[in-house]
Amino acid sequence: MNRKALAILMRTKMRPTDPNNLSMSPNRIQYSFESNLFGEHEISPSKNLDSSSNPERGLKFVQETLHSAITMSKTDIIDEVLNDFSQGYFNLSHENRRELLLVLAREYDVSRVQLRELIQQYLSLDIPSSEKAQSSDHDVQGLLSAFYRTERNLRHALQPKYEILFERLNTHPGGLKFLTILRDDLLSMLQEENSAPLRALDSYLKEKLVTWLSPAALELHQITWDDPASLLEKIVAYEAVHPISNLIDLKRRLGVGRRCFGYLHPAIPGEPLIFIEVALLKDIAQTIQEVLWDNPPTPESQATCALFYSISSTQPGLAGINLGKFLIKRVVDLVKRDMPHVSTFATLSPIPGYMQWLLAKLASQRKLAEADTVDEPHSSERTSSSTFRENILQPEEETEILDSSRGHTSGGNGMEVMWNLLTSTNYEWTSSPKLMSVLQRPLLRLCARYGIPHKTS
Amino acid sequence: MNRKALAILMRTKMRPTDPNNLSMSPNRIQYSFESNLFGEHEISPSKNLDSSSNPERGLKFVQETLHSAITMSKTDIIDEVLNDFSQGYFNLSHENRRELLLVLAREYDVSRVQLRELIQQYLSLDIPSSEKAQSSDHDVQGLLSAFYRTERNLRHALQPKYEILFERLNTHPGGLKFLTILRDDLLSMLQEENSAPLRALDSYLKEKLVTWLSPAALELHQITWDDPASLLEKIVAYEAVHPISNLIDLKRRLGVGRRCFGYLHPAIPGEPLIFIEVALLKDIAQTIQEVLWDNPPTPESQATCALFYSISSTQPGLAGINLGKFLIKRVVDLVKRDMPHVSTFATLSPIPGYMQWLLAKLASQRKLAEADTVDEPHSSERTSSSTFRENILQPEEETEILDSSRGHTSGGNGMEVMWNLLTSTNYEWTSSPKLMSVLQRPLLRLCARYGIPHKTS
Repeated sequence: MNRKALAILMRTKMRPTDPNNLSMSPNRIQYSFESNLFGEHEISPSKNLDSSSNPERGLKFVQETLHSAITMSKTDIIDEVLNDFSQGYFNLSHENRRELLLVLAREYDVSRVQLRELIQQYLSLDIPSSEKAQSSDHDVQGLLSAFYRTERNLRHALQPKYEILFERLNTHPGGLKFLTILRDDLLSMLQEENSAPLRALDSYLKEKLVTWLSPAALELHQITWDDPASLLEKIVAYEAVHPISNLIDLKRRLGVGRRCFGYLHPAIPGEPLIFIEVALLKDIAQTIQEVLWDNPPTPESQATCALFYSISSTQPGLAGINLGKFLIKRVVDLVKRDMPHVSTFATLSPIPGYMQWLLAKLASQRKLAEADTVDEPHSSERTSSSTFRENILQPEEETEILDSSRGHTSGGNGMEVMWNLLTSTNYEWTSSPKLMSVLQRPLLRLCARYGIPHKTS
Repeated sequence: MNRKALAILMRTKMRPTDPNNLSMSPNRIQYSFESNLFGEHEISPSKNLDSSSNPERGLKFVQETLHSAITMSKTDIIDEVLNDFSQGYFNLSHENRRELLLVLAREYDVSRVQLRELIQQYLSLDIPSSEKAQSSDHDVQGLLSAFYRTERNLRHALQPKYEILFERLNTHPGGLKFLTILRDDLLSMLQEENSAPLRALDSYLKEKLVTWLSPAALELHQITWDDPASLLEKIVAYEAVHPISNLIDLKRRLGVGRRCFGYLHPAIPGEPLIFIEVALLKDIAQTIQEVLWDNPPTPESQATCALFYSISSTQPGLAGINLGKFLIKRVVDLVKRDMPHVSTFATLSPIPGYMQWLLAKLASQRKLAEADTVDEPHSSERTSSSTFRENILQPEEETEILDSSRGHTSGGNGMEVMWNLLTSTNYEWTSSPKLMSVLQRPLLRLCARYGIPHKTS
C-alpha cells in the first residue's frame, strides 16, 4: 500500500478556492448536476453555448415546450416534453430565463374571468345551516353536495395554470431538483427587482415545495465514511458553518464521537437536502475549537452531551423552507434512544437576530434613560418616558461594565458602553478576558429573554 | 439441519382462512399495525374494550384531543396530542368514529363568513391588465402585490380547518398511515350512507393523499427473499390476484426468472403501498398456470418477455389513487435497462370494465338487429335504428359462433348466442376448446376497440 500517497491525499485542501462558486449570487446561472469537487468541474451546457448561436430561437423554443408541458393532455410523451423544457431552460441566459419566468407568471396564471363567474355562482348559493348538514333527507344532501362541489371548483379555479407545470415536473425524474433550481433563479431575480407576478410565482412554488418536501417524505440518513464519495463531496461542498479542510477532517466528523445526519428525498438521491453535525462530548464545549480539534475524541460511552455544532442546507432554492427544525428534533430523539447516557443537548450555533434585537433594545432604552436624566428636575412629567423603560442591565452589571470598560470605550451609562463595545469595528471586547467575563452574564440573561417570544420549537 | 422441519414449514398454507379479514368491509374497524400472519394476530385495542367501559367519555375525550390538535399553536406537545388523538380514535366504536368524523367535517370546515368577506374584498379589486403586469412603476407593482395577496388569502380561506389536522398528522410519526386508515373508515361509511359533509371530507383528504404520495416521494424497491420477514408477510397478506399458497410459492415469486417490485414511502417503512409481480419468459404465456408453475423457470438470459402477472395495493385507504400506472412505467424502464434482450411487455391481468362494456354493447346491438329484422318489409323506416347499428361481429365470426354453439346455447343471431355464452352461470365456454378458439378472435378484436377510448397512459 502506498502510505505516502494516501497521506498526501488525506491532507489535500478540499474547498474550492472560490467559495462564491457555491453561494447565492445573481450571476450564478450555470448548474451542473455533476459538479465534481474531487476533480474537474463538469459544467452543464451554459448560456454561452446557446446565446452565441441564436438566443431568440432558444427562448422561443423553450416557450413552446413550456406551453406543451402545461396544455398537453397525452401523458405518453410528457416526459420527453419536460426533458426538452428543462434542458432548454438550462441553456438560456439569465435574461432569457427571467423573460420565460415572467411569461409563466403572467400567461399561465389564474383564469380570472372563469374565477369571477364561479364566485357569482357560489354567492348565489345559501350557506348550509348546521341543521341541514345533519339532515338525512335525500334532497337536502343533494343540495349540500352541490354546495360543496361549487366550493371545490372555486378552490381549483384559484390554482394558477402553472400549478400543472409544477405538478408534472414533480412526478418527472429530476423534476423536483429542477424546481429547486428554478426557485433559486426566482429568488435571485427578486433580489434585483420587485416584480409582483414573479413574487406571486415564487410564493406559490414555495408552498408546493413545502408540501412535497414534508418531513414525512424525507428519509433520515446517518452519513458515514462508508457512504459513496459522490455523497460525501456534497457534505464538503455545502458545509456552511465550519469548512471541512481535508479528508482527515471529513473522516473525523464521521468517525468515533461524531455523528452526521442528513435528510434525503427519494427524488433527489445521493444528495442530502440538509445535514447536521453532532459531537458527543463529556461536557458542553466552550468554543468550537474544542469540538473540532479534541484529539482523541471522548469515548462514546463517557459522553453525556450531544453538541450540534453545524447545520447546512444544500439547496439555495429551498430558502425559507424550515427543514432544520424537524431534522434537529428527529436527531435528538434518535440520540436519546441509542445513547441513554446522553442527557444534555446543546449548540454552539449563532442565534439569528439576537444581535439586532439587542442593539435596538440598547439604543432605545439608552434614549429613554437619557430622557429620564434630562427630565429629572420636572419629576411630574417623568411617567411619559418611564412607562416604556425596561431594566436592561441589573445594577451590579451596570457597575461592572462601567468599571472594566475604562480605556476601551466611553459612555454615559452601562447601556451606552455596552452598545459601543458590541458595535466596535474590531470587536476588541472578544480579545479581553475581563470584558468577556463581564459581558457574559448580561448577554446570556438577555439572550434567554430574547428567546422567549422567538421560540419556535 | 432439520430438513424435515424446514420442508414442513415451507409447505405450510399461509393465507389466513378467512380472506375477509383483509378485505373492505364496514365491520372491519379494528386495525393492527402489527398484524402478524406468520403467528398470532396481535389486535390493537378495539371498540369492545372501550365501549364496555364508557363510550361517551371516550368520544368526548377524542373530540377534545381533536380540537387541541387543530387549534393549538404550541408545537412542543403537538406530538403527544396527536398520539392521544390517534390512540383514542382506534379505541372508538364504528358508530363513534362516524360521529367524530361528522364533527370534523362540519365544525372544522371552511369558515364561510370570513370567506364571503374576502370574496367581497377581492371583487372590489380590478383585474390587473397585462400592461400593468409589465410595468416597472413602483406604485403599480404595489397595487399588483395587493391583488395577488388577496387572491392568496382567498385560496387559503377556502381550505377547511381540518386541513391543519391532516397537515399535522402527515408530519407526525405514524400519521400518514393513520390518515389512510381514517380514509378507509370514511369510504366504508360512504358505502352505508350518502352524507355530503363526509363526502367532502373524503374528497379533500384524497387530494391531500395524492399530493403526499406523489410518485416522486416513493421509493422503488425490489422485493427479494433477502427482505425482512415483516415485509414479506405483507406481500402474502395483500397479494390480491393470485394468492400465495406457501413459503415455496413465495420464494419462487422472488427468485430466478421472477421480479417483485414495491413502492415504499419513507413514512410507512417496511410496507409497500403497492407491489407488482413480473415473470421473465421466453414467450408470452397463454394462461396464468404456465406462469405460476413453470418449473424450472426460463433462464433469465433467454427471456424475451416480461409478463406482469399480478399487481396489488396494500392500503384500502388509498382507493382511487392511481399509483399502479407509475409503478408499471418505472418497472418497465428498469427491466428495459437491466435486460435489453427483453422486448415484449405484457400482462395477463383482467381488463377492468371490458365485460360490462361488451355485454351492454351486445345487448343493445342485438335489439337493433332484431328491430331491423322486424322492420325489413318497410324498408323506408329502417334508417331510424340502423344509424346506431354497429358491425359487432364479422360475418365469418357470426357463422363460426352459430355453428359451434349448438348443444350449448341457442339464440337468433351471433350476438345473442355470444351474450348467452358469456353470461351462462357456469362459464361452460371456458371448458370447451372449440368455443374458446371461436370466441378468442372476436373477444380480442373487440377488446382492442374497447381499449382505445379507455387508454390512460
